[in-house]
Amino acid sequence: MTTERIAEFFKTRRPEGPCLVVDREVVRDNYTAFRRALPDSAIYYAVKANPAPQILELLASLGSNFDCASVAEIEMVLEAGAGADRISFGNTIKKERDIARAHALGVNLFAVDCHEEVEKIARAAPGARVFCRVLTDGEGAEWPLSRKFGCVPPMAVDVLVYAHQLGLESYGVSFHVGSQMTKLEAWDAALADAKRVFAQLAKQGIYLQMVNMGGGFPTKYLRDVPTAEAYGQAIFAALSRHFGNQLPKTIIEPGRGMVGNAGVIKSEVVLISKKSDDDKHRWVFLDIGKFGGLAETMDEAIRYPIRTDRDGDEMEPCVLAGPTCDSADVMYEKNMYPLPITLTIGDEVLIEGTGAYTTTYASVAFNGFEPLKSYVI
Amino acid sequence: MTTERIAEFFKTRRPEGPCLVVDREVVRDNYTAFRRALPDSAIYYAVKANPAPQILELLASLGSNFDCASVAEIEMVLEAGAGADRISFGNTIKKERDIARAHALGVNLFAVDCHEEVEKIARAAPGARVFCRVLTDGEGAEWPLSRKFGCVPPMAVDVLVYAHQLGLESYGVSFHVGSQMTKLEAWDAALADAKRVFAQLAKQGIYLQMVNMGGGFPTKYLRDVPTAEAYGQAIFAALSRHFGNQLPKTIIEPGRGMVGNAGVIKSEVVLISKKSDDDKHRWVFLDIGKFGGLAETMDEAIRYPIRTDRDGDEMEPCVLAGPTCDSADVMYEKNMYPLPITLTIGDEVLIEGTGAYTTTYASVAFNGFEPLKSYVI
Repeated sequence: MTTERIAEFFKTRRPEGPCLVVDREVVRDNYTAFRRALPDSAIYYAVKANPAPQILELLASLGSNFDCASVAEIEMVLEAGAGADRISFGNTIKKERDIARAHALGVNLFAVDCHEEVEKIARAAPGARVFCRVLTDGEGAEWPLSRKFGCVPPMAVDVLVYAHQLGLESYGVSFHVGSQMTKLEAWDAALADAKRVFAQLAKQGIYLQMVNMGGGFPTKYLRDVPTAEAYGQAIFAALSRHFGNQLPKTIIEPGRGMVGNAGVIKSEVVLISKKSDDDKHRWVFLDIGKFGGLAETMDEAIRYPIRTDRDGDEMEPCVLAGPTCDSADVMYEKNMYPLPITLTIGDEVLIEGTGAYTTTYASVAFNGFEPLKSYVI
Repeated sequence: MTTERIAEFFKTRRPEGPCLVVDREVVRDNYTAFRRALPDSAIYYAVKANPAPQILELLASLGSNFDCASVAEIEMVLEAGAGADRISFGNTIKKERDIARAHALGVNLFAVDCHEEVEKIARAAPGARVFCRVLTDGEGAEWPLSRKFGCVPPMAVDVLVYAHQLGLESYGVSFHVGSQMTKLEAWDAALADAKRVFAQLAKQGIYLQMVNMGGGFPTKYLRDVPTAEAYGQAIFAALSRHFGNQLPKTIIEPGRGMVGNAGVIKSEVVLISKKSDDDKHRWVFLDIGKFGGLAETMDEAIRYPIRTDRDGDEMEPCVLAGPTCDSADVMYEKNMYPLPITLTIGDEVLIEGTGAYTTTYASVAFNGFEPLKSYVI
């Protein structure tokens, strides 16, 4: 996944310290693949995955829409050249004054998952379109979503009726099957729930128009993942099964699936050591860790591919840890990582599939270390 | 723990958005308490706990020494007015070029825990003093340190012999009993190990001088913790037990214990909702969460005291979560947090005991949210 352009960048620019390089051409290819796989769905790029201005500008120029988590993200998208009509304020947890600011900037599409949020939007963005997020079970996802977002489907019906009563446009429902979802059938149960909410509301004369099918599209880390095409077919089949020939408008919100495989982090081996003479395993310490951009290694959830110049040599399982004085800054220990036995202090390692959820996750200055640098080429 | 000065600051300044306020007078009191409790130990403040310039300046003026994790932290301490002779480069994981930079800045005291790190220091800081970190078991600590730092005591002997052979000054040993350690006896076993390393090296004609007893001193969160005085007595007793009348120089490295209780975060309730009509528990969403400064709520490890203006009212257990679109951004769910049933969207909450490990831990811009603002008064 280290493209020739990225390899060339590292070779010629030789940046000091850990850094991420994102290849714009891969983002473009991913966008095209989503377009082809789900030609009838609008793409709302999940800005939080990687808000680098060059990525937002590229996607804006390709015609993408944007899923924003905050006013700051909305402003970045506007700055990148997309109009407010291409923005969804997709965070279900919003301050009322932020809703008002977004509305003043022209945003007219908001996520909700409870009556209280509907009331805020009715006051701060009167007449706006809202969609209600429905809880789904995240089984099969490598980064499960828990119960934090969404409400059960019967409550979603009440929430959307309430929105209608308060003068908002009850526009649709959303769900999120869980990040890095590799089970194609995951969308089926969620679409069945969505259809039931549509039907319940239609009985009350409220006609929803849109299903926001969220993100969850995976990046290939170590294991193969289904193609965008396979997702497209499975989702289209599920949509047809549940909605028949009255297909709603649909939205997808790829983040990881759009930029994850477009980025590579360069890091350096700072130390390799053992804890005792008879320790079976080496500890390999990099100059990046859980607080420097690899937060998604939390609980060893995401397992990134790691490349070295010595990959032809014999491999042995190692503990992999970051450079901070924090004991939690260990990436892989329960499930150790195979690395070349010849790996040496000072070696460069490439951590692939790191285009998403790395730069902005980095801590601002923990242990005095700078946040992750980033280059988009 | 919200001092009158902090309360007054919030009342008169009314800062917008989540922010930390640290009361310098509490830091001064903590420093004095450590001084009195362990009058024969040198205090090396763990800069990573909170590197705010005003805190470093205060501690420098009081005569504190400093434990630094990186060259950036070393530069901040020098900037605050302490000389390089008051600095320990306490991170066991250092790039060789960072050792050289620290040495060029005058730093002459370095942590090691393996032969490889000794070699780097011998090359980059010839003749410097080194201490070897010994693995201890973190039983009893609320934020356990795992095996990331240190080596077993027999290996520490070899490492210090090796340092001596390479022309370094083998100066002592260090250990860390685990952060937020509330068992007074924890230092005893570690000091026994330290003494054995001293004795083994003395047999080879190498006379260590210093025991770095690390940090681990707790902050009072919800439960009472022993006083600095009680720690002082327990540690002095253990030192005497193991070293008799040949007491070594000793160092302590309080971080959390120095600044934890000096800080209070002001936050705002963004949303309160349920997931279904018959949900037994309310979800309370704040404008700060795990990625905005409360990283130590990871695995619900640190449980901060939370104050509201409605604390006299009836309480009920709530799930407490942050404002980002990340499902992992939930602070307390398995062990829910009691909050007033009258708590309302827009209410201010004060999160106490947040002076340590909050500001620099905050993510740089996750979801577009700014890092935690901080004021030292």
